Amino acid sequence: MKIKEYLSANRKQIIADLASLISIPSVSAQPEHKPDMIRCAERWKHLLLEAGADNAEIMKTDGNPVVFASKIISPDYPTALIYAHYDVMPVEPIELWNTPPFELTEDNGYFKGRGTDDDKGQSFIQVKGFEYALRNGDLRCNVKFIFEGEEEIGSPSLEKFCRTHKELLKADVILVSDTSMVSAQTPSITTGLRGLAYWQIAVTGPDRDLHSGIFGGAVANPINELCKLIASITDNDGKITVPSFYDDVEEVSAAEREMIAAVPYDETAYKKSIGVDELKGESGYNTLERASIRPTFDVCGIWGGYTGDGAKTVLPSQAFAKVSCRLVPHQDYRKISELFIQHIERTAPPYIKVSVTPLHGGQGYVCPIDLPAYKAAEKAYQRIFGQQPLAIRRGGSIPIIAVFEEVLGIKTVLMGLGLESDATHSPNENYPIELFFKGIEIVAEFYKIFGHNDTDR
Amino acid sequence: MKIKEYLSANRKQIIADLASLISIPSVSAQPEHKPDMIRCAERWKHLLLEAGADNAEIMKTDGNPVVFASKIISPDYPTALIYAHYDVMPVEPIELWNTPPFELTEDNGYFKGRGTDDDKGQSFIQVKGFEYALRNGDLRCNVKFIFEGEEEIGSPSLEKFCRTHKELLKADVILVSDTSMVSAQTPSITTGLRGLAYWQIAVTGPDRDLHSGIFGGAVANPINELCKLIASITDNDGKITVPSFYDDVEEVSAAEREMIAAVPYDETAYKKSIGVDELKGESGYNTLERASIRPTFDVCGIWGGYTGDGAKTVLPSQAFAKVSCRLVPHQDYRKISELFIQHIERTAPPYIKVSVTPLHGGQGYVCPIDLPAYKAAEKAYQRIFGQQPLAIRRGGSIPIIAVFEEVLGIKTVLMGLGLESDATHSPNENYPIELFFKGIEIVAEFYKIFGHNDTDR
Repeated sequence: MKIKEYLSANRKQIIADLASLISIPSVSAQPEHKPDMIRCAERWKHLLLEAGADNAEIMKTDGNPVVFASKIISPDYPTALIYAHYDVMPVEPIELWNTPPFELTEDNGYFKGRGTDDDKGQSFIQVKGFEYALRNGDLRCNVKFIFEGEEEIGSPSLEKFCRTHKELLKADVILVSDTSMVSAQTPSITTGLRGLAYWQIAVTGPDRDLHSGIFGGAVANPINELCKLIASITDNDGKITVPSFYDDVEEVSAAEREMIAAVPYDETAYKKSIGVDELKGESGYNTLERASIRPTFDVCGIWGGYTGDGAKTVLPSQAFAKVSCRLVPHQDYRKISELFIQHIERTAPPYIKVSVTPLHGGQGYVCPIDLPAYKAAEKAYQRIFGQQPLAIRRGGSIPIIAVFEEVLGIKTVLMGLGLESDATHSPNENYPIELFFKGIEIVAEFYKIFGHNDTDR
Repeated sequence: MKIKEYLSANRKQIIADLASLISIPSVSAQPEHKPDMIRCAERWKHLLLEAGADNAEIMKTDGNPVVFASKIISPDYPTALIYAHYDVMPVEPIELWNTPPFELTEDNGYFKGRGTDDDKGQSFIQVKGFEYALRNGDLRCNVKFIFEGEEEIGSPSLEKFCRTHKELLKADVILVSDTSMVSAQTPSITTGLRGLAYWQIAVTGPDRDLHSGIFGGAVANPINELCKLIASITDNDGKITVPSFYDDVEEVSAAEREMIAAVPYDETAYKKSIGVDELKGESGYNTLERASIRPTFDVCGIWGGYTGDGAKTVLPSQAFAKVSCRLVPHQDYRKISELFIQHIERTAPPYIKVSVTPLHGGQGYVCPIDLPAYKAAEKAYQRIFGQQPLAIRRGGSIPIIAVFEEVLGIKTVLMGLGLESDATHSPNENYPIELFFKGIEIVAEFYKIFGHNDTDR
């Protein structure tokens, strides 16, 4: 059966199965969802067996379990390891969702719901593409699957799991569908990712909330001070002021900057798509560079004092922020984390107490474009989209990719099929339904190429 | 019956009645407590009648009702109008309370609970002092009571109420027990109050929360920008940078600064009492000056982005802050509010939208120390405490005091009996039990003096 017929015949069931994944609120950041993590892993185990895996099991880690499955056809064939994650981001602020976040809704050509792109939608594309290739007799490689439940909180247990199960995870390449393309009209494959460092800052002033009339003016206000501290981390040129922060930043070549300039980019459309009048970033770099090859400093959350209705006058005891840096290749997140903490501790004034706690981190990654699996993916995109995909660097982070290289010695190809407009990590996450089915075709096409050539391992 | 005997005989009932007030969560800032405002007003009406008022009624305003009561003895006598408020501050963060906030607890010589000082405790002192003076035949003045339910949100309805009921509220002086003394060992009467302006700032960047990897570095982050904005409002000398902000600030005379320097003040004890290692404030002024005769800029609350567990990476759409300035005599809060809004709007960068909404405001106040009622209060404090009370300026704001002067043409004497350690506006608000009963003696003593002298009106 041709793939289009196959997808047409099974369309209803495929959507129902995707819906069963979306319906499980597997939010790794929120402890109350612990039982949902197990339910989601169980659901994947079932779906991987249905897709044709010889075996699938739920394996313990120090945190949420890993789902492992495999289809071994021949020891003579190369092996692809499909990595994905079954956890999703929190859905707050929930009042901004137009549809129930944990319900797969079809709306005007789009799937809607948390995880429809990141990463339940994209990983189900991998599974269904594998299923077709297997049933159609196209597989000339072995396929293993490792689906983890902690990607959105920085994969804290997966490195140890990889070290413990190196033999089980042996493969020639890792495939990951968890990134975005330039657009549905401009297919692209991500060849670089930013790293990440993430901290929580706590500023403590007086040991209790004070009356701002009685004490105001005489005692440092922790929110004022937290704001000054955060404001001081970037200068007027958008540079990060932490000493030695830029020491290891890769100076990207003029040739690569030219390649970035070749990416179709319409600033007016870009601004309109996110509802801003003007853009802002590091001077000396354009928007695409700022969002991919340059490090950043963003406050992800801030809170302190009175945040209810009305006008409570208070000089609060504490203030908090969650802050993060996206890092670029060669910047080591552990070193940056240390530099940041030292800088804050060194510059904190004596009238407040400041503590900085690292919450998360990961290295950046670069994929060589002459890798056999990269070439197979490139050809698959080219055939289905009708045009050569661009090789681009992206601004996001998948810290575990660098760990795979370090611990397992395996390179990863980032067969991402998302779009920036999918609102991953935001309210109203969505994914175009036709791109979902096109993605399955691309994965199936990949298996018609990868392993069919002697140079593929 | 001597007052000590009277208080001893009635001690249990007085405490039970105070407990009945504390048990009503009359939090004006939180709309869910609307019914409690009515309950609290009803309770006061009952207690004022019990204390000996001829009549007491609950009167409508545009907001929470006013309780009005009076005892008219003779048109030939001067009239004192007792102003107080039956609303209290919110109790959040509730987890920091060691006792239930809306329950009067007796602990080691202290009353504990929201309002035990501010202002249920202090206003009940006024009522019980009046009751004794009346029963003992000491009254040579008429007494009126006006207890409002919106002081903690800036008394938005009281000015109109005063304009509407000028005749009813006619009096020679207003007495208010809602301020603090230097300490239980150093009695003092407040002769100056700071004004207040209070705003909410909203910063909007992109029209939804964005992925901080995909967009980070290229798009202004509203929290980063809010922090920069707040940080820019004060300079390194602790001065406020809003143009023309200091234009009308009263330059306090050297003589008055000397009087402030005479107030007993132990910096080590002050720092210890609030748990800070160092103090911070405007350069060129000492701690007591910074907290009374100089204006301030304090952030009372801030929020935005992800504030839950874990490390969600997000570039949020919006960030908010509640900010306030304490003002000093001659600074008009309306003018300052306008200057502040104009400054923010003028300096807001084009890559974010900033809106500033005034939430609250009031003028500062100065009380002349040759006022007959001031002199009577001074003598009453002197007799009960055994020492002359200091005349001091305080940093807090009771905006309605300036309105009384403007609308009713009546000066106010601030017969405050609180202590700075009472944790008003904070968790674990408390009030020393013996000071509570001493306060009743002072008020009763006041009535033995005020009106007994021909010069008293």
